[in-house]
Amino acid sequence: MSFVIWLTGLPCSGKTTIAQNLYRYFKSKNRKVEVIDGDVIRQYISKGLGFSREDRFENIRRVSFLANILSRNDVIAIVAVISPYREMRKMARDMVESPFVEVFVNAPIEVCKQRDVKGMYKKAEMGQIKGFTGVDDPYEPPENPEVECRTYIETVEQSTNKIIDFVKRMGYYKEDV
Amino acid sequence: MSFVIWLTGLPCSGKTTIAQNLYRYFKSKNRKVEVIDGDVIRQYISKGLGFSREDRFENIRRVSFLANILSRNDVIAIVAVISPYREMRKMARDMVESPFVEVFVNAPIEVCKQRDVKGMYKKAEMGQIKGFTGVDDPYEPPENPEVECRTYIETVEQSTNKIIDFVKRMGYYKEDV
Repeated sequence: MSFVIWLTGLPCSGKTTIAQNLYRYFKSKNRKVEVIDGDVIRQYISKGLGFSREDRFENIRRVSFLANILSRNDVIAIVAVISPYREMRKMARDMVESPFVEVFVNAPIEVCKQRDVKGMYKKAEMGQIKGFTGVDDPYEPPENPEVECRTYIETVEQSTNKIIDFVKRMGYYKEDV
Repeated sequence: MSFVIWLTGLPCSGKTTIAQNLYRYFKSKNRKVEVIDGDVIRQYISKGLGFSREDRFENIRRVSFLANILSRNDVIAIVAVISPYREMRKMARDMVESPFVEVFVNAPIEVCKQRDVKGMYKKAEMGQIKGFTGVDDPYEPPENPEVECRTYIETVEQSTNKIIDFVKRMGYYKEDV
């Protein structure tokens, strides 16, 4: 059994960047690891789902199913999905048999908008995209995340190390075993 | 890297029984293994998909995605899905990076109907279920499967052993390594 690192946060808060950095770290230690990225998942197992509350829950249910099947087979599952509702993150935690590490990837929305490489916030504000988290759809910040990364003042390395330190401290991950 | 055992055949041809038997075998050898069963998948990652040709392809695409992510992480993926079209089984083979073992679970439709524990064939023949493989939806038998199990004359053990012998002979699976 392995563990799940669940990165939640606003669009452009830095989830994917941290996920990729974590992936490289665990790979360099010869550990089995997969990134489950929201954007990729919506092209594969969640094709056809939209962004209504119901569809977002169904998407997270599928992601949780996948994270569980991987982590119970010793593959570290790094999940990078907005997962805006507290209730859906609780559902994910309940569906996963392995240790579950909720990471709040925290950045003020102004910072996220500045980073907006794909111009999604702009489109949402112009009404070209409906149901965009942070603009016309809610984001409920975690109340008791295992780790909080403040990507507006931390480097990617600092954020990544916080998470690695946590899984080591909890005994979920041991090096050179 | 591990391998994928892809069991294809008519409803009630014996796919799930063989899958479960294979699962027990590999578990007893302390190997990581998962069964991806069509009926279970449709409750999880394929909820909402129907049985049109298009939806069946999308379902198999998701199953293949899952089988690939498991097998590339050393988990033996045993897939038990009708997968009625040759073209969709080819798609599955192309999507999987690991060795792909197509197993034709072969039983004449009369035998499958006799086994019809859930009464599905009866419902299909009475028109209560539409698009049921073998009744009003096609099944294209594999032309060159890696293994053929004739479940109408073989015991489950004989069928299972054929598959195990094949993966051993090909070097996909070695015991006591």
